[in-house]
Amino acid sequence: MGNMDLDVECVHRVAIPPTQPFITSLKASLKETFFPDDPLRQFKNQPASKKFILGFQYFLPILEWAPRYTFSYFKSDLIAGITIASLAIPQGISYAKLANLPPILGLYSSFVPPLVYAMMGSSRDLAVGTVAVASLLTASMLGDVVNASEDPKLYLHLAFTATFFAGVFQAALGFLRLGFIVDFLSHATIVGFMAGAATVVCLQQLKGILGLEHFTHGTDLVSVMRSIFSQTHKSKRKPKFFWIAAMAPLTSVILGSVLVYVTHAEKHGVQVVGDLKKGLNPPSLTDLAFGSPYLSTAIKTGIITGVIALAEGIAVGRSFSSLKNYHIDGNKEMIAFGMMNIAGSCTSCYLTTGPFSRSAVNFNAGCKTAVSNIVMAIAVMITLLFLTPLFYYTPLVVLSSIIISAMLGLIDYEAVIHLWKLDKFDCIVCLSAYVGVVFGSVEIGLVIAVAISLLRVLLFIARPRTFVLGKIPNSTIYRNVGQYPVANNVPGVFILQIDAPIYFANSGYLRERISRWIDEEEEKLQALGEISLQYVILDMTPVGSIDTSGLSMLDEVKKNIDRRGLKLVLANPGSEVMKKLDKSKFIENIGQEWIYMTVADAVNACNFMLHSCKPGTVVTESTVNNDSNV
Amino acid sequence: MGNMDLDVECVHRVAIPPTQPFITSLKASLKETFFPDDPLRQFKNQPASKKFILGFQYFLPILEWAPRYTFSYFKSDLIAGITIASLAIPQGISYAKLANLPPILGLYSSFVPPLVYAMMGSSRDLAVGTVAVASLLTASMLGDVVNASEDPKLYLHLAFTATFFAGVFQAALGFLRLGFIVDFLSHATIVGFMAGAATVVCLQQLKGILGLEHFTHGTDLVSVMRSIFSQTHKSKRKPKFFWIAAMAPLTSVILGSVLVYVTHAEKHGVQVVGDLKKGLNPPSLTDLAFGSPYLSTAIKTGIITGVIALAEGIAVGRSFSSLKNYHIDGNKEMIAFGMMNIAGSCTSCYLTTGPFSRSAVNFNAGCKTAVSNIVMAIAVMITLLFLTPLFYYTPLVVLSSIIISAMLGLIDYEAVIHLWKLDKFDCIVCLSAYVGVVFGSVEIGLVIAVAISLLRVLLFIARPRTFVLGKIPNSTIYRNVGQYPVANNVPGVFILQIDAPIYFANSGYLRERISRWIDEEEEKLQALGEISLQYVILDMTPVGSIDTSGLSMLDEVKKNIDRRGLKLVLANPGSEVMKKLDKSKFIENIGQEWIYMTVADAVNACNFMLHSCKPGTVVTESTVNNDSNV
Repeated sequence: MGNMDLDVECVHRVAIPPTQPFITSLKASLKETFFPDDPLRQFKNQPASKKFILGFQYFLPILEWAPRYTFSYFKSDLIAGITIASLAIPQGISYAKLANLPPILGLYSSFVPPLVYAMMGSSRDLAVGTVAVASLLTASMLGDVVNASEDPKLYLHLAFTATFFAGVFQAALGFLRLGFIVDFLSHATIVGFMAGAATVVCLQQLKGILGLEHFTHGTDLVSVMRSIFSQTHKSKRKPKFFWIAAMAPLTSVILGSVLVYVTHAEKHGVQVVGDLKKGLNPPSLTDLAFGSPYLSTAIKTGIITGVIALAEGIAVGRSFSSLKNYHIDGNKEMIAFGMMNIAGSCTSCYLTTGPFSRSAVNFNAGCKTAVSNIVMAIAVMITLLFLTPLFYYTPLVVLSSIIISAMLGLIDYEAVIHLWKLDKFDCIVCLSAYVGVVFGSVEIGLVIAVAISLLRVLLFIARPRTFVLGKIPNSTIYRNVGQYPVANNVPGVFILQIDAPIYFANSGYLRERISRWIDEEEEKLQALGEISLQYVILDMTPVGSIDTSGLSMLDEVKKNIDRRGLKLVLANPGSEVMKKLDKSKFIENIGQEWIYMTVADAVNACNFMLHSCKPGTVVTESTVNNDSNV
Repeated sequence: MGNMDLDVECVHRVAIPPTQPFITSLKASLKETFFPDDPLRQFKNQPASKKFILGFQYFLPILEWAPRYTFSYFKSDLIAGITIASLAIPQGISYAKLANLPPILGLYSSFVPPLVYAMMGSSRDLAVGTVAVASLLTASMLGDVVNASEDPKLYLHLAFTATFFAGVFQAALGFLRLGFIVDFLSHATIVGFMAGAATVVCLQQLKGILGLEHFTHGTDLVSVMRSIFSQTHKSKRKPKFFWIAAMAPLTSVILGSVLVYVTHAEKHGVQVVGDLKKGLNPPSLTDLAFGSPYLSTAIKTGIITGVIALAEGIAVGRSFSSLKNYHIDGNKEMIAFGMMNIAGSCTSCYLTTGPFSRSAVNFNAGCKTAVSNIVMAIAVMITLLFLTPLFYYTPLVVLSSIIISAMLGLIDYEAVIHLWKLDKFDCIVCLSAYVGVVFGSVEIGLVIAVAISLLRVLLFIARPRTFVLGKIPNSTIYRNVGQYPVANNVPGVFILQIDAPIYFANSGYLRERISRWIDEEEEKLQALGEISLQYVILDMTPVGSIDTSGLSMLDEVKKNIDRRGLKLVLANPGSEVMKKLDKSKFIENIGQEWIYMTVADAVNACNFMLHSCKPGTVVTESTVNNDSNV
């Protein structure tokens, strides 16, 4: 560093950004928070009548794709629709029993909601139906206050009310564009949560099944069915077998009913489904229990099941839209789900969403649009109008087996192992959700998982990393000496990088950590007998944001550094940080000439001071050497 | 960019860091989270006997500074101690009435706790005493379940129990080194919260005072006192008047008592303090109401008041230690506070901490060590043993005025204005704490303020900023084009910087935002008729961390970019990010040669490809030009 040219070379100054009116920056922030995908982009520069049509199409996408519907689409959708109907009918009856509701509700719920979704939804592959986890939650939360066997009417009405509030909540999230809340349920959380719920369901069902152990027919039937159903688990990976898996539930129902009918097993104690009322969904608007003393439980149940249903439905929609490369507006989907559930609650349905398994079958069966849902609804309608007596002899054991086989598919241990390998904290989140659900309750498991996920985010902010930077030889690049061991220290200059925004949650920690870094560095230099420190450079590149506690922290750090006889230099602060530093008069305090655009500029200025000037001389644009800068 | 030299120039590769055993990295993380200030550093390399002594000194700092105590220290501490005693006596009686407790408890609480703190505490300036906010909270929370006038004995015992649990909680936080939890109460939160509590207290007290309106003596006394006390508010800024402020409460008590005694006003309806029992603190260990049905309320009260008291005490300790340039271990202080309150609960004291106002008086009076607390305790002891009958005639109006004047000092509207100028979000946090306390309750205000503070942190993570980077002319520096309008785009290359770690909370948003950035850029280039994009460079410098959702997001972004016929390039990923990218096979996926240490390296490689090679040729170390790199 001996020869320094005094050529004029631009030292790049960091300008203080001009003040923006508060309203402007607030509008920009609100837009980015609530409308990040700019959904109203298409409305720009359109005549009023077109805007009206576009608005209508926004809420009813069917108006947009129906005109382009072709017969070849219909062929594919017909096959897919019939396939998912063959799943919907047995699964619907089974899951309704899981929710302690009359089995016919499962069929009702596969009639009206899919029709609503076909009109308002955006996904081309999602198949609407009830889900085991939501059914379980409903039974668990409503069952706390009302016994379904003692007071079935009240229980039923509360279930409708919970569905109504679930729908209202979902639609509200969509309208208020608060869809990002669902993002807080991470994939790890959902894997653990679903596995835990599935375990609980399986254990429940096994209890029921094993109660029939001494009926040879029952056990054999179970083992036969289970081996068939184990194919469902493999269907995710081997689409060839998917037809077997798709047909299996309906086949077992038919076989089981025939077997019971032929052997009159229902007279020997084998429990059967029994009488299913013929006819379409009766209206249930008057059944909504707004005046009930248990209204708060219904609301709570509705909100929790609504959020979980939403998380699954949105995730399913996004997965398939990503596979097929089209775009889905998450908030619009939420409105569709919400409307679907509100309409359902008024037509004797309970909570529905887009379950992954059924949508996967839909996808594998070659669906092209949401018309597959319409086909499924029509098939269910025909069943409701004409075919319900056929289910009289269906043994409950078969329904339990259908549930268990579907649940086994949810226990995704391979995903857990993958999480462990990739990111152990995420694996801990997953396992705590699982443990919370299995050993506590579903709500506890969910709260624990979300809390631990958020804790990770807060810990990252509360304990940000700080690195020492060193110079990569033969360059003007400064990088973390821990990551690049070849990086060397610069004599007399200590460079620290703070790896997070500086907020109240970490300003105390950062102040002490920086102080400790400087202590340790000075001790080390003293022990080695090298030049003692003169300058401390803080690289602010990753500091995206700073609040008032952070500004106080910088002040105190500067005082601390001044007291030690050192000089504080800043490198590369972002525009928001510069604005705040200016308002708090920190820039005046430190001197604007001590804020550089790059670490290399800062180091060059310090080196120049160390080697040629008296301490305290101000470095101007003409006194810096002409190495290229970073 | 026409002439490219094919000189061999090191293109700096980003190496994949070697895998560390999980236990090692876990230990390092735990150490940084819980022991950031390395408090056990002094224990290294010491013989066992020394370690034992050091350990003893760690918990009882008095053993460490007492041997170095000098007479000149004692002179200063004596003056300071008498000064704060003159505040402690009237304030103690006043605040105890605020808490609906017998006034003598205020004196008890200025006897035992300061002695414990002097032995175990680390701050040289902190003066121990009761605080109005905690007294208010105690009255409010315990008053919900027990009426202090109807059942004073139970109320008293619950107050002791609450103090006990506050102490246990504080000590536990200190032992478990969870002190950083207190950092989550930001300065803005505390300003708003304190102002709200002060407002509530003033309104309460005014109600009482105005009830005496038709007694001329009372009103005149109040107005006279209030003008004297308004000096207290200014004492923070003009230490000259601080003696007046410090002496004012005791002076008013004396004047008021004399006035009442001479005019026999207590016979005319002016309420007075009445009989105060002589003698030191009676033991109250047996009074702790562990068996009470209201135990849970006592525990809840203890925890909430304990945390608030801790926040104030720690903040006070840190402020003065920073002013006088010595170091305080926050967790050790918490243990001291905890022990102080546990001891207090067993000796008829209620919650104490280090109030700012009293500590400021202590500081301004020239205290040198915690001996000022011992002097104050001795003065209070003398009062308890001999002087309590003197307070018989003290009018309650005077006590109310003392409280109001102290409270007015807490309503720091200048701080709120300063917050508004610096950081509007922090101001909103402050105001919502205020509104929550005044219109809701103290607990609601606290919860709202903390929740909004945390929301800000989460929003920062959930909606991170993304910038487009451009090249600063005549350099190889790439900066945000919004902050540096001189920065130019590079033809055919689009450079984005992500300003936060990539977690589940923001991966969905980032995926869509990046997609939208590329859409808008391509539209713009098409409209301007310029070269279309070929490369997308992601600058990962501020991305400190990534989880499994983030890794999935990067995969999907790469697929999206590939589908558009573009190529994804990464610049400057940190070591933790590189490890995760390697484990998830993303590096194999993208090709390690497409990860560069600097944005400039990446841009040079892309430019080289754009101008000389067939698309798809791999850029190796020998094919990059020899401009210096960033």
